[in-house]
Amino acid sequence: MVNVHEKQFLFDCGEGTQISLRKERVRMMRIDHIAISHLHGDHYFGLFGLLSTFNLLGRTRALNLYGPPLLQELISAQEAAGEMVRGYPLHFHATSTDAPAVLFEDATVRLESFPVRHRIPTTGFILREKPKEPGVKRAWVADWNLQPTEILSLKRGEDVLREDGTLIPFAEACHAPPPPRSYAFAADTRYWAKVADWVRGVDLLYHEATFLHAMKDRAEKTFHTTALQAGRMAKEANVGRLVIGHISARYEGPGLLLEEARSVFPDTVAAEDGLVLEVKSRC
Amino acid sequence: MVNVHEKQFLFDCGEGTQISLRKERVRMMRIDHIAISHLHGDHYFGLFGLLSTFNLLGRTRALNLYGPPLLQELISAQEAAGEMVRGYPLHFHATSTDAPAVLFEDATVRLESFPVRHRIPTTGFILREKPKEPGVKRAWVADWNLQPTEILSLKRGEDVLREDGTLIPFAEACHAPPPPRSYAFAADTRYWAKVADWVRGVDLLYHEATFLHAMKDRAEKTFHTTALQAGRMAKEANVGRLVIGHISARYEGPGLLLEEARSVFPDTVAAEDGLVLEVKSRC
Repeated sequence: MVNVHEKQFLFDCGEGTQISLRKERVRMMRIDHIAISHLHGDHYFGLFGLLSTFNLLGRTRALNLYGPPLLQELISAQEAAGEMVRGYPLHFHATSTDAPAVLFEDATVRLESFPVRHRIPTTGFILREKPKEPGVKRAWVADWNLQPTEILSLKRGEDVLREDGTLIPFAEACHAPPPPRSYAFAADTRYWAKVADWVRGVDLLYHEATFLHAMKDRAEKTFHTTALQAGRMAKEANVGRLVIGHISARYEGPGLLLEEARSVFPDTVAAEDGLVLEVKSRC
Repeated sequence: MVNVHEKQFLFDCGEGTQISLRKERVRMMRIDHIAISHLHGDHYFGLFGLLSTFNLLGRTRALNLYGPPLLQELISAQEAAGEMVRGYPLHFHATSTDAPAVLFEDATVRLESFPVRHRIPTTGFILREKPKEPGVKRAWVADWNLQPTEILSLKRGEDVLREDGTLIPFAEACHAPPPPRSYAFAADTRYWAKVADWVRGVDLLYHEATFLHAMKDRAEKTFHTTALQAGRMAKEANVGRLVIGHISARYEGPGLLLEEARSVFPDTVAAEDGLVLEVKSRC
């Protein structure tokens, strides 16, 4: 789950997700966007329960759902079978594996999808903050008695030239805004070099790392990635930080996989239940 | 979950059931029968994950699934969406709300369904042991040097008359077998007097008790039962013991509901996570 300025985006929703959200004290009803990468059960079997819980809790606010086209049919079939009357609008946006696409956009964030290579149609997602307006320095507002129209001009990045010839230069009157941050979720995928083009430069990249590189052939065959390959992806895409996950249950813990990924890309952490990371700008 | 001579039957399968089964160290792969009462999410959203886990664990043994006809379509749609290849046969048996029916039968147990009254088509289930053969007393086998054909006759309840005129009376030579036991699962339902005819005399009755009787009207309207009504059902059906469950989250615990049910039917317990009960014959 990603919280951007109190907008909450959920990426994938395996069985028991609502139980975990409750445990971590996430304000579930504030989740307005859920993006499902693909239709293997471990990535969406918790969705039906969550949609149903929203209903029980009296949700009326619209929910945006992004996922493979078939997902909408599965939801409709289940709601029909249960004769469920949903009390809130569900806006479904079908994802496509043809090319990257913008799924949602408002004044502060943009959600994108990009294709990956898994056994069935699968997309990754990128969540990007939009650039913020620069802030006008308080001292300048006071000293020059800046008027609202002048402040708006400065916020747009323009210098202000008054009728009396006074120049108020944008570069001096304004703070630079914090650089916009970005997060990419690369879902379940075989290592695919092209993904680097799409996630290039993101501040935080989640990439699966199911196997150690000794099992490269098995990774290839089952459309998964090795820890070494995940590290290479992070390096190639020049991201800020790498989180690996989806680690095979055959490994006792993430230790060896972390070591492998870090040998290529040092700033790597392993996903675990309840882990909270701040997405920091890499600039 | 009911274990009858190491045959395991699962009744309903809400989200997270596989997690609970693992926690309680149930040998999941030994579950060969799953019966779903109706298609409200809290009763079957864990089924897809469990079926999928069976596959991951390499199950090859057939699984019997009983439930409303639409359930089969939902499973097919999900398996198709995930391009899942199931490694084990799934025998689906559609339930009907027209009349009680026998769903499964072998040498030792019988599974039956019966209609109940809920918002959508719903059935309850009864699991009955079959009568066991009487056992021949060891001392009689030794003292009379009983032959295999004679033992078979005795087990069939026949006296044995030897050619030399010796009579070996069944009633003395045999132990009475333990009386067969039975369990009924009455699912989600409005109080419906007719259910008593179908569950009459079972040793253990699970009946839902969503509300206290003060909320009788709400129970009626939402097709649920009050604790008092559950107690009445147990009394009317002359069962051995009552387990109440599906208690509304509005109550802090089962205390008041137990009190209410026990005012009519003293031998009542409340279902809770991890509760294990031995089904004892009421005879």
